[in-house]
Amino acid sequence: MTYRPSFQDIAHVGHVELFTPKFEESVAFFKNIVGLHESGRSGSSVYLRAWGDYARYTLKLTASPKAGLGHLALRTRSAEVLESMAGFLLESGVAGEWHDGDFGHGRAFRFLSPDGHALELYFAAERFTPAQENRAYFKNQPQKYIAHGIAPRRLDHINLLADDVRACRLFFRDMLGMRVTEQIVFPEEQEMGAWLATTLKSYDVAITKDHSGAHGRFHHLTYFMDSREDVLRAADILVENNVFIETGPHKHSIGQTFFLYCYEPGGNRFEIGAGGYLILDPEWQPVVWSKEERAKGQAWGLQTVSTFHTYGTP
Amino acid sequence: MTYRPSFQDIAHVGHVELFTPKFEESVAFFKNIVGLHESGRSGSSVYLRAWGDYARYTLKLTASPKAGLGHLALRTRSAEVLESMAGFLLESGVAGEWHDGDFGHGRAFRFLSPDGHALELYFAAERFTPAQENRAYFKNQPQKYIAHGIAPRRLDHINLLADDVRACRLFFRDMLGMRVTEQIVFPEEQEMGAWLATTLKSYDVAITKDHSGAHGRFHHLTYFMDSREDVLRAADILVENNVFIETGPHKHSIGQTFFLYCYEPGGNRFEIGAGGYLILDPEWQPVVWSKEERAKGQAWGLQTVSTFHTYGTP
Amino acid sequence: MTYRPSFQDIAHVGHVELFTPKFEESVAFFKNIVGLHESGRSGSSVYLRAWGDYARYTLKLTASPKAGLGHLALRTRSAEVLESMAGFLLESGVAGEWHDGDFGHGRAFRFLSPDGHALELYFAAERFTPAQENRAYFKNQPQKYIAHGIAPRRLDHINLLADDVRACRLFFRDMLGMRVTEQIVFPEEQEMGAWLATTLKSYDVAITKDHSGAHGRFHHLTYFMDSREDVLRAADILVENNVFIETGPHKHSIGQTFFLYCYEPGGNRFEIGAGGYLILDPEWQPVVWSKEERAKGQAWGLQTVSTFHTYGTP
Amino acid sequence: MTYRPSFQDIAHVGHVELFTPKFEESVAFFKNIVGLHESGRSGSSVYLRAWGDYARYTLKLTASPKAGLGHLALRTRSAEVLESMAGFLLESGVAGEWHDGDFGHGRAFRFLSPDGHALELYFAAERFTPAQENRAYFKNQPQKYIAHGIAPRRLDHINLLADDVRACRLFFRDMLGMRVTEQIVFPEEQEMGAWLATTLKSYDVAITKDHSGAHGRFHHLTYFMDSREDVLRAADILVENNVFIETGPHKHSIGQTFFLYCYEPGGNRFEIGAGGYLILDPEWQPVVWSKEERAKGQAWGLQTVSTFHTYGTP
Repeated sequence: MTYRPSFQDIAHVGHVELFTPKFEESVAFFKNIVGLHESGRSGSSVYLRAWGDYARYTLKLTASPKAGLGHLALRTRSAEVLESMAGFLLESGVAGEWHDGDFGHGRAFRFLSPDGHALELYFAAERFTPAQENRAYFKNQPQKYIAHGIAPRRLDHINLLADDVRACRLFFRDMLGMRVTEQIVFPEEQEMGAWLATTLKSYDVAITKDHSGAHGRFHHLTYFMDSREDVLRAADILVENNVFIETGPHKHSIGQTFFLYCYEPGGNRFEIGAGGYLILDPEWQPVVWSKEERAKGQAWGLQTVSTFHTYGTP
Repeated sequence: MTYRPSFQDIAHVGHVELFTPKFEESVAFFKNIVGLHESGRSGSSVYLRAWGDYARYTLKLTASPKAGLGHLALRTRSAEVLESMAGFLLESGVAGEWHDGDFGHGRAFRFLSPDGHALELYFAAERFTPAQENRAYFKNQPQKYIAHGIAPRRLDHINLLADDVRACRLFFRDMLGMRVTEQIVFPEEQEMGAWLATTLKSYDVAITKDHSGAHGRFHHLTYFMDSREDVLRAADILVENNVFIETGPHKHSIGQTFFLYCYEPGGNRFEIGAGGYLILDPEWQPVVWSKEERAKGQAWGLQTVSTFHTYGTP
Repeated sequence: MTYRPSFQDIAHVGHVELFTPKFEESVAFFKNIVGLHESGRSGSSVYLRAWGDYARYTLKLTASPKAGLGHLALRTRSAEVLESMAGFLLESGVAGEWHDGDFGHGRAFRFLSPDGHALELYFAAERFTPAQENRAYFKNQPQKYIAHGIAPRRLDHINLLADDVRACRLFFRDMLGMRVTEQIVFPEEQEMGAWLATTLKSYDVAITKDHSGAHGRFHHLTYFMDSREDVLRAADILVENNVFIETGPHKHSIGQTFFLYCYEPGGNRFEIGAGGYLILDPEWQPVVWSKEERAKGQAWGLQTVSTFHTYGTP
Repeated sequence: MTYRPSFQDIAHVGHVELFTPKFEESVAFFKNIVGLHESGRSGSSVYLRAWGDYARYTLKLTASPKAGLGHLALRTRSAEVLESMAGFLLESGVAGEWHDGDFGHGRAFRFLSPDGHALELYFAAERFTPAQENRAYFKNQPQKYIAHGIAPRRLDHINLLADDVRACRLFFRDMLGMRVTEQIVFPEEQEMGAWLATTLKSYDVAITKDHSGAHGRFHHLTYFMDSREDVLRAADILVENNVFIETGPHKHSIGQTFFLYCYEPGGNRFEIGAGGYLILDPEWQPVVWSKEERAKGQAWGLQTVSTFHTYGTP
């Protein structure tokens, strides 16, 4: 029987590689202000993770002439699914190839989204083991909480820009088994945004319209806090460290997440979030927001900042 | 090929029926103090739900001479899974039978846990549709948030007591596809508790040791708030309304949930919770807590209240 | 020896009277959405208070053809101070007169601010006594917390508009003994705003520039929550009830208060706040913000909404 | 006319000196785990402050063979009050003497409470000036918030033990002008505790019964967070760093403060708090709690831990 991707065949967003033209500053930002932990270095890359991330890393920063997305890596729920899904992609005409893996994870299948974003599937992954002094009091936690900087708990989601939102939405849904949770559809079926989940969270991947005509661009990456109060605290930490907050803290109507956006020194947009809702209903139907509804702004009326519609990194 | 239950074949805990010998008081407690909404009545039962519950109800209160669990209903992820899982249970020698459903849901398969708890599987379910004045501003929400009483967002989990924790743990794992997330195992393999998840939450069903020799008893039911601050507010609401708080607010080491426990007027234990962690790792291994570790008390040292080990409702 | 007003001779902002051309809607808004409690009615006025207000009322709503400030009442710290301060005002050439008091308080001295706002001093005041069923579990609280609507704890402060901010600032400082905590001063000594405190809070009265040429106008009134999380919850309650949020939730740089602004049905601006800082230093010097600093927006960069500078009620 | 101390003649609790037999460990605890900042060293003392404390220090740690209170320093509201109050104390038969001051403050008058606690009055005080890199974005704040450890905002209050609570209560009220806000009085007029305020907070100094027969002992010192959520985070930080939490987080009925208690390495009890209420009523009458009321435990029912009644440091 032919394999067809099912919901949750992708276990979760595994990690994201970001390119940065200001490598040292970007590393310093994520370590000292955000409070991520360095777990490895190799060549021109540094590997980072939050205290609650079980994997060896969730963010790979790579020195590069330009900012933007290196790749988005998705962990499948099993080794079998990895093989099947890669096979299915190839059969479906998606060009892709296997490579031997990277720091902390094994064999991976690399391919492109319809808009040109580099994507990767893998399964075999090492768990992070903390140094003795960082072992957790809470045994169900990968390491102890270290109160330094913003200190988010874990990687949450990624937002990609796409010229053809619909094509990307269908790709993530039909090729990767994700659930479409919410959408923005303007008159005449123009899709302006799609939110997809591979977990029960309100989204794991967002795809929003790139008005610039460019392809394969990156909008933002998000780490999550346990509470909205933590996001408010993060806002203070950012301004106290001269980091410009593009917008927020405020609540998104879509996904009900509480957000703030800034830029890391390399120019990539970075979000600190919290909240959202869990989708328990197996028959969930996408919630579709219209142009009129979006014109009301974010949840409590904050108008979406204009750069949000124009600024992305290649 | 024979069907075998997989993780997440049960979509979520659908609803719980509680028996109460003080029917009117119990209904008043859940409506006026907890802030649940009545969505139906029939015979000697009232159907209730939280503002964020998508289903017609998540709590059924039934007048009865004694308090305790009526039944625990689990919604499968599809109609096919419902049929397959019921078939699998029957083939595995679990006695069970189909009935026509209840208010808000269709055909259901009723059977007993190894300790005698009435369990039920169903799939077909109606979604709650609010009255016009209660339609949500947030379209991704079943109805508007009504600021009255504690006002939890949704049903979260149930805790059952069992004489043989191990037997129940294996039943929920092997017969229903749940993931064992955490356990308490005392010396000589004595299992004192098991936490299982059918979602990515840290647990959906907990089974803890019944020291009384009784069977099929109920420990507590939990509704969830969006924040720990909400749980602190709930504590004030309870004491201001002369509701005894058995223990908490405090943080569980297990599951990292923030809790408070009280009793509804019929005598059933009731929890208001928040927090916890999401399990993204598809290779999660159960976290096992020893007797020594449990002796330290809850997360920040609060000793587990003695009634917690003795009080249950049939 | 001549009496001179000292810091804290005014104990606190006692109550505010607001005029409303939509009396029933305004009363309904404050009772059902904000969650204030009615403690009395007389003629065309309703008296309201928050659950944590010790006085008989902190808000008096009066039916009137136009919205705006009825009067601002300040409670002195003693009967002697009331007499002395009224005498001092008269001697200083401030026109004013005594009246017999109102619901819940005694003899009061009524006069005008330099910009024409009706102000009132009083001392004798009744304490609110709750009905038996609303007596507080927390004996140090005037009544029990009732979880209905936004449910702020207490009246916090008032913001007046003034054509001549400097004159008003000096009046509240020199005639009423308040402490200037923060100021906005634009180039060439143009005072755009002054924050004054009669308690240790970061402010109790704010005076901001009225660009319209009008006099005696009202900017907003603020009730306070215990936490910023409560303000976020209030925002949801407002939008769910179709109340437009003018701006926020966000943090003010000035005073460090967390805010959201809306309009009550009569058209008066209304704020829900939390946070701020206590001023313990007896030698506190006013913090002065420049035009450049204000151009950065509120604490985390939110630009001050334009209506904030233009909209006021007479 | 003879000077008599008035309410708020003491501006606030200025600083506390604690003795510690484990000097290096105590300093490390307050700097690395609590997140206080060192602002000076001299001889066998280290001076520390929180990021929101305006003074050069609020905690002085002094190496000593035994733990306990060095002294409690109270800042008067003016230089004149300092002279008058010292004079009043001497005239009233309180032995005391002037000394030249200490790091960060000038001339001070040292005397003993009726139970033997070393107290000190001073007025002249230097304000803390941060290094350039620690200047605050929020100009109304003494320095920037540094996200490291628990990072409380400011010193809040001190709790002294006394054999004769009544004598101490009357001393702080009549000799120092403090307001008695709450009390515990057991049958037959036995005073078990008194809470006094010199600000509008629910208390600044607490005096509780020493059942040991000892004199001049210290119960605890408290630093304050902006939110209860911050206290919950502090609890995690403590347990992750192997610091035993004696009790809490929970809410005190008295003062409505949210608390957690631990011990610093030298053995002195230390509290992280938040919340409480402001007292605006100039006619506030002390709230008196009976033995029966106290038997209910803390706000939500937590029984007061037994060590709370027995453990103190000389």
